[in-house]
Amino acid sequence: MRAQPDPQSATRRIRLGMVGGGDGSFIGAAHRIAARIDDQFELVAGALSSSPERAHASAVKLHINPERSYASYEAMAQAEAQRNDGIDAVVVVTPNHLHVPVARAFAERGIHVICDKPLATSLADAQALAQVVQAHGLLFLLTHTYAGYPMVRQARELVQAGELGELRIVQVEYAQDWLGEPVEQQGNKQAEWRADPQRAGPAGALGDIGTHAYQLARFVSGLQVQELSADLSTFVPGRTLDDHVQAMLRFEGGARGMLWASQVASGACNALRLRVYGTRGSLHFDQEQPEQLWFAPQGQPARLLRRGMAPHSVSLASESRIPAGHPEGYFEAFATLYRDFARAWRGGESGLMPGLRDGLDGMRFIEAVLDSHRQNARWVTL
Amino acid sequence: MRAQPDPQSATRRIRLGMVGGGDGSFIGAAHRIAARIDDQFELVAGALSSSPERAHASAVKLHINPERSYASYEAMAQAEAQRNDGIDAVVVVTPNHLHVPVARAFAERGIHVICDKPLATSLADAQALAQVVQAHGLLFLLTHTYAGYPMVRQARELVQAGELGELRIVQVEYAQDWLGEPVEQQGNKQAEWRADPQRAGPAGALGDIGTHAYQLARFVSGLQVQELSADLSTFVPGRTLDDHVQAMLRFEGGARGMLWASQVASGACNALRLRVYGTRGSLHFDQEQPEQLWFAPQGQPARLLRRGMAPHSVSLASESRIPAGHPEGYFEAFATLYRDFARAWRGGESGLMPGLRDGLDGMRFIEAVLDSHRQNARWVTL
Amino acid sequence: MRAQPDPQSATRRIRLGMVGGGDGSFIGAAHRIAARIDDQFELVAGALSSSPERAHASAVKLHINPERSYASYEAMAQAEAQRNDGIDAVVVVTPNHLHVPVARAFAERGIHVICDKPLATSLADAQALAQVVQAHGLLFLLTHTYAGYPMVRQARELVQAGELGELRIVQVEYAQDWLGEPVEQQGNKQAEWRADPQRAGPAGALGDIGTHAYQLARFVSGLQVQELSADLSTFVPGRTLDDHVQAMLRFEGGARGMLWASQVASGACNALRLRVYGTRGSLHFDQEQPEQLWFAPQGQPARLLRRGMAPHSVSLASESRIPAGHPEGYFEAFATLYRDFARAWRGGESGLMPGLRDGLDGMRFIEAVLDSHRQNARWVTL
Amino acid sequence: MRAQPDPQSATRRIRLGMVGGGDGSFIGAAHRIAARIDDQFELVAGALSSSPERAHASAVKLHINPERSYASYEAMAQAEAQRNDGIDAVVVVTPNHLHVPVARAFAERGIHVICDKPLATSLADAQALAQVVQAHGLLFLLTHTYAGYPMVRQARELVQAGELGELRIVQVEYAQDWLGEPVEQQGNKQAEWRADPQRAGPAGALGDIGTHAYQLARFVSGLQVQELSADLSTFVPGRTLDDHVQAMLRFEGGARGMLWASQVASGACNALRLRVYGTRGSLHFDQEQPEQLWFAPQGQPARLLRRGMAPHSVSLASESRIPAGHPEGYFEAFATLYRDFARAWRGGESGLMPGLRDGLDGMRFIEAVLDSHRQNARWVTL
Repeated sequence: MRAQPDPQSATRRIRLGMVGGGDGSFIGAAHRIAARIDDQFELVAGALSSSPERAHASAVKLHINPERSYASYEAMAQAEAQRNDGIDAVVVVTPNHLHVPVARAFAERGIHVICDKPLATSLADAQALAQVVQAHGLLFLLTHTYAGYPMVRQARELVQAGELGELRIVQVEYAQDWLGEPVEQQGNKQAEWRADPQRAGPAGALGDIGTHAYQLARFVSGLQVQELSADLSTFVPGRTLDDHVQAMLRFEGGARGMLWASQVASGACNALRLRVYGTRGSLHFDQEQPEQLWFAPQGQPARLLRRGMAPHSVSLASESRIPAGHPEGYFEAFATLYRDFARAWRGGESGLMPGLRDGLDGMRFIEAVLDSHRQNARWVTL
Repeated sequence: MRAQPDPQSATRRIRLGMVGGGDGSFIGAAHRIAARIDDQFELVAGALSSSPERAHASAVKLHINPERSYASYEAMAQAEAQRNDGIDAVVVVTPNHLHVPVARAFAERGIHVICDKPLATSLADAQALAQVVQAHGLLFLLTHTYAGYPMVRQARELVQAGELGELRIVQVEYAQDWLGEPVEQQGNKQAEWRADPQRAGPAGALGDIGTHAYQLARFVSGLQVQELSADLSTFVPGRTLDDHVQAMLRFEGGARGMLWASQVASGACNALRLRVYGTRGSLHFDQEQPEQLWFAPQGQPARLLRRGMAPHSVSLASESRIPAGHPEGYFEAFATLYRDFARAWRGGESGLMPGLRDGLDGMRFIEAVLDSHRQNARWVTL
Repeated sequence: MRAQPDPQSATRRIRLGMVGGGDGSFIGAAHRIAARIDDQFELVAGALSSSPERAHASAVKLHINPERSYASYEAMAQAEAQRNDGIDAVVVVTPNHLHVPVARAFAERGIHVICDKPLATSLADAQALAQVVQAHGLLFLLTHTYAGYPMVRQARELVQAGELGELRIVQVEYAQDWLGEPVEQQGNKQAEWRADPQRAGPAGALGDIGTHAYQLARFVSGLQVQELSADLSTFVPGRTLDDHVQAMLRFEGGARGMLWASQVASGACNALRLRVYGTRGSLHFDQEQPEQLWFAPQGQPARLLRRGMAPHSVSLASESRIPAGHPEGYFEAFATLYRDFARAWRGGESGLMPGLRDGLDGMRFIEAVLDSHRQNARWVTL
Repeated sequence: MRAQPDPQSATRRIRLGMVGGGDGSFIGAAHRIAARIDDQFELVAGALSSSPERAHASAVKLHINPERSYASYEAMAQAEAQRNDGIDAVVVVTPNHLHVPVARAFAERGIHVICDKPLATSLADAQALAQVVQAHGLLFLLTHTYAGYPMVRQARELVQAGELGELRIVQVEYAQDWLGEPVEQQGNKQAEWRADPQRAGPAGALGDIGTHAYQLARFVSGLQVQELSADLSTFVPGRTLDDHVQAMLRFEGGARGMLWASQVASGACNALRLRVYGTRGSLHFDQEQPEQLWFAPQGQPARLLRRGMAPHSVSLASESRIPAGHPEGYFEAFATLYRDFARAWRGGESGLMPGLRDGLDGMRFIEAVLDSHRQNARWVTL
């Protein structure tokens, strides 16, 4: 296990290795773009595919030194841990079932972790991983991308500043349509593993996008869900896992809310929306219009807050890379999570970076929903 | 009891009497404007207020002959039924608890009824009234205003034409903010009776706007709700009735959905929204933008349908009074319900006019929600 | 010539006669609905069509006493002026070339005038009419409908209150697409007279919608146009009059602006939009979303003002008929002009009612545009 | 002068040097992010500031080898041209007056050029530079960022495919508000050089954003402007150059249009909008919502085209980095221009890459506007 930070940690690029994410991977490419945007990382190693040929071919394309292109994540963890110029952090972009074993293999060798959500396929696995990470004092970034949007952080700040008063209602939804047909039986790789309980775990849309919705609601509102009542559905014939989630939420302090996540909502692309209402006003965020945030103070005209504009964004100035009106988007939000990570790695504060706490919270949410569903939507305490 | 239709029924204006709706009434004024817009009605009688002075003063302002301004609805029903030029229909715009007795008094004398929703304060009362109305072969318009919007009717037509395929998801919500404070304790007349179980019945936001949301979802989707799980809340201290409703819905045939109705959603004016998703496409209607309807065929760009434009509006041409781009609104939707009534009164077809069936359906919905809520959101069959 | 107001003028309905506007007329029907909405008018006489049969048939449908259905406007003016219960005002909804002779025939007999725009087919005619109207001390409503929208009046009020600071830029446009094809040669009655210089006058789109755009810009900004440079086009083969107008404007005090009006803008319904920018903020109004007005104070988030909501609408409360969120539209804006007229007729203030001044201003605009166009867009002083 | 492409040009990263763009530069940072996004470039040299200290400090931060951080662009051109691993291309992100001398210094040594717009401060200078670039057979990317948006390219493709029919109207505008106050006198570095004729050239808003609007209109419509009539204004006291441009356009083939560019439009961030209308339909693009494009076929409901969705995007699939609904923005559009450049550098086709032709066209536009303005908006032929 390596000591850290090294003497150059204030300025040099952080060395990354990636597990999964080879050619054709949607999320691997997104991670790489995100890591490049602010130029604080370099990708130097990889076990990019379970197929050695694909792994190697992908490594070449990505300018990874062939000797640091590994056939397995175990080999990579072992070798990189022993190099003087070994990777500082691993990026885990595998199907869900490998998140824990891969992250663990690196964490046990003192290598920081950047991992896709959901954290695990069971709460117990997640907790075990968390212990390892914490025991080694490592950084852990769980890439809940949407928590990287400046206007999401703005929303959180407004709530915390009391601009909404006491919260009463939280409505969150995440609608997609790309699983409206049985595309997992028609060669769609992204769909195949997501529809396969062996690789995705027991949650379908619930784990894939329900956790994003839940995290966003928690991140912005700051409220704990006390109990929930959930009803899962599987609309597409031949599918095992849920593709549609509906749930009612009861928050601490009496707030109420609903959560809807669906991957069969025809016509919806990536429609993650959050609305939070308090005694003094409300907020509305729509991920497909991420540069803006509606803020409606009670009894006043609604205001369209925009990234980079006064007066509500003062403390968020550093989240922007370019003035208002030059749209930042998904990759920049993603890059902001990497920037959070880099800041922490260099010894700074990164209080907003999603991590193990969000991951454990998400697993508790998944298990509570599954539990409630099995009992015909009975209220289940989180 | 009078025979009807009279020889002039094809052309003359329909004579209305109004119960309630005196000076300062929000909904009474809306009914009168709606009745005037297409010039098929004239208001000739009224028992406009429980206070005789207010009733008389209102009648003068409304150009009602003083001798047909009555001190009570019973007196009005009796007198008008005996006149040769007596009213053809009564407009009931009282607080909820009077809907049934007033409607009944006129129906028993063979006078048609135009009535605000909800139909009654209990299902049993509603059923009793329905029997009287049906026994006398009368017309009954329940003013679910939103069913009068051309784009709502367009939506219904698209569903029926199969453009959405098999329906999977129905999301409906109705958010307002005007009861976010205890205004019923601060002199707001509209709020006073709505917050008073003696006059509003056992349902607060549930009866006032939840029924609208429910009717809209049913009207457009054509689907029956098989069972629901509902959670009511009262956020404002000192309030007896619910001001916030959340419910999960299971429809016949397997569709799923959620219903949210709140009168404490800060920043919301009159935000009634319906989304319906099927295997082939989806629809989105927002009452605050009633001239448009989003139609997103699966795998195609979403289309913004507008009132009065080809190609989807062919059979709805008659619903418009003016070409697209000249906004029609709430009053015109309301007027369309009156036009439906007039058409039926003159012997024509008015299949889209909301009536007793919607009213009974709404009462079943209210009672199911109350029942589910009392059992901690257990599923209740409708 | 009749004396006026009569003893009942404080309360009775104002008696209207209509010239033009028979069956199938777009604007005649709009006037009638507008006049009914607030129930301050009754239509009692008409010369509804140049064809006596159509005139009579239309009168019957409109519940006009057959003896007050006239074969010509001259006969109507003469007869009504002599009745004790004669009309108080005439509504002129003929093609443009008849506006002046009809209005004059009634004005000379002391009957008030409600007239469509443009006021005339030449400035000289308009001035002559204005003299007659003024000499008889009559009311004159020129139905620039869009000046009846509450949010347009709100915009004007904000400008006058200095909320925008010193005005710098005024951008106005009015785009339609219904004349994109030569529909005047294909049986479209609305298009026929508008495309015919004998009936429409020398201005096509310029007179039909350009004048609306100009009036709206003037009404809200309060600025005078000092000079303009204009370029007219006729895109549709076989058409005589312009169907497309572009102009640059120089306002008093140094503000600049542009005006665009087109009836061949494919895909546009009735897209009248105004933007006004000052040193302290800007406004944006879109006629197709008339319930809202964007107000962007410099350096602050933009605010979405809505009809009927605090804080900017205080003095406009009386313009609304129903709370925010229940959309009012075109007919209600139109009705507000009739309400302005009624208020003036009953002896009150109606400072915002468009009238002769707007009509003369519009004619000066038309003639300046035509003049500039003839000189290859040279600057012309108004 | 170096031969090129080298044996590795198919795969290796392209080596960049940057002139200007040191710490605090808005556009230098944008170029660097853009160049990194697709990982086809590396920044290896720079003359980042006219101040040697700032240049060096910036180079360190950017991981540039100190020996390749130069005190002047001349030194850099000379030294890099002689290295075996010298830069392949220079990125010119200086104030306008240096574009030509810097680009020329590198081009004369056979180094490709990536340059900000406007190309020069006079058409003559631009033409001279173009000759040098062409004589050396070099690539030249002029970073008209907005031509990199997928939906802008989609728009161009729809026009070329005839989906709009024959074009009639082109409306383009670019509104900002950041120069509404004399910020160039208050320490705003971005404003200082833009307001200084010595560094910006003779055009203010005209050169800064007017050229973008013009290029966008030309890029999408494919139409040539035959003549224009332009009116410049300077609203802010003490400012020398224009801050507001209005112009009327006459296109080849008879189409008409208007161009508006303003940097004093209070409340506008970066509001570049283009509308194109043809005989068969119209398009509407708004840079602040770059993921969408409105397409309104005549007589059909308008369609909201989105990046990455069928059916109109087939040939544009390669422009996207991530599925629809995950917003791409300004940096990704910018990166697409770099991708165009890389494709061309590697020997492929890059027909959409803006370059010298756009630059010369823009200079002709600037000079025509200045000429017209000097003659009180007389029509000037381009």
